[in-house]
Amino acid sequence: MKPTITAFERSPDRGRGLARDMRVRWALEEVGQPYNVRLLSFSEMKEPAHRTLHPFGQIPTYEDADLALFESGAIILHIAERHAGLLPEDANARARALTWMFAALSTVEPPIVERSMATILERDKTWYEERLALLEDRVHVRLGELSSRLGRADWLDGAFSAGDLLMVTVLRRLDGSGMLEKYPNLSAYVARGEARPAYKRAFDDQLAVFTGKPPTG
Amino acid sequence: MKPTITAFERSPDRGRGLARDMRVRWALEEVGQPYNVRLLSFSEMKEPAHRTLHPFGQIPTYEDADLALFESGAIILHIAERHAGLLPEDANARARALTWMFAALSTVEPPIVERSMATILERDKTWYEERLALLEDRVHVRLGELSSRLGRADWLDGAFSAGDLLMVTVLRRLDGSGMLEKYPNLSAYVARGEARPAYKRAFDDQLAVFTGKPPTG
Repeated sequence: MKPTITAFERSPDRGRGLARDMRVRWALEEVGQPYNVRLLSFSEMKEPAHRTLHPFGQIPTYEDADLALFESGAIILHIAERHAGLLPEDANARARALTWMFAALSTVEPPIVERSMATILERDKTWYEERLALLEDRVHVRLGELSSRLGRADWLDGAFSAGDLLMVTVLRRLDGSGMLEKYPNLSAYVARGEARPAYKRAFDDQLAVFTGKPPTG
Repeated sequence: MKPTITAFERSPDRGRGLARDMRVRWALEEVGQPYNVRLLSFSEMKEPAHRTLHPFGQIPTYEDADLALFESGAIILHIAERHAGLLPEDANARARALTWMFAALSTVEPPIVERSMATILERDKTWYEERLALLEDRVHVRLGELSSRLGRADWLDGAFSAGDLLMVTVLRRLDGSGMLEKYPNLSAYVARGEARPAYKRAFDDQLAVFTGKPPTG
């Protein structure tokens, strides 16, 4: 039995891999777990049938036999606990990798999402320019701190982990903003993630949903 | 050896238990694990010594022998994995409790924090009233969805778990906004959490830091 995840029938990012199914696809590819995808329209996401799976009416969800999960972080943790390759075996290193998972989602992603939402929802407001500057300052604080911690290392704490997987996908949400490029070690870190074969397979699969063409790989 | 956590020397919430050390204290009390607290001033939090523990210069941190963690979600997960009382034993129920931990931190908390920050940082801006309405709408969407899912249940998924612990502390950040009171089942849910003996011990301990008086319990 393959697990089933949900994704946008038509992703608002036009296949750039910024939607949250991308991170789950990547995790499944890293551990070599095949999966099915059920595509949802925006209206289907808000219907009672999907709300039963995801109370907040979003994607992705994860279904495997009698288990149903939502929240990309929880889904990735579940995958990482059942398969080798996303969390270190050493107990302390594992706890630190989990810390980076939460840091990506709780500390780094919120100001990035806030900025993205403002560029969509507040672009026509009188306050847009002034507030965008405030929001970008907040993102730069986090990027500067993350850049300092990463330093010259390849990954945040030893070997590649689910913490890096989440952090790379979170930083990719700055795509097109020009902000990440101010931190060469973070840009190289994201590129290092994108170069992983499992990332490429996941990216091609989500892009194929948008273009309607099956992946050629 | 008792673990050591960090907390504000002088909490900006004046001891209302809204800072993120509260959730870690509560988790430690639920499992009966004694702990030490090291208090930090705002300037100490941003110094290199603390940045080594917490790259983003925040509280809480968690130190136990040669392990150092940050991120309240990760700290609570670490505690929950090492002690009974915060996660179900059944594998599927455990995965669902982890989902609620991530939902509290990734889906419900960000719009609540965004609203709180605006009330502090944007109060003197020309756009404040208009934007506050937008932010409160976003919070209400999440509260409505959470209220629908909780229904008449005591906790989010069966017995009290670390998911409830985090969700209660996240909802408490609306204290004083009058927003939570529109959802009687969520208000009762938060009150149910606050009535737990472990919550009360943790609350008294963090309040004692602010008042300078040792807890009487």
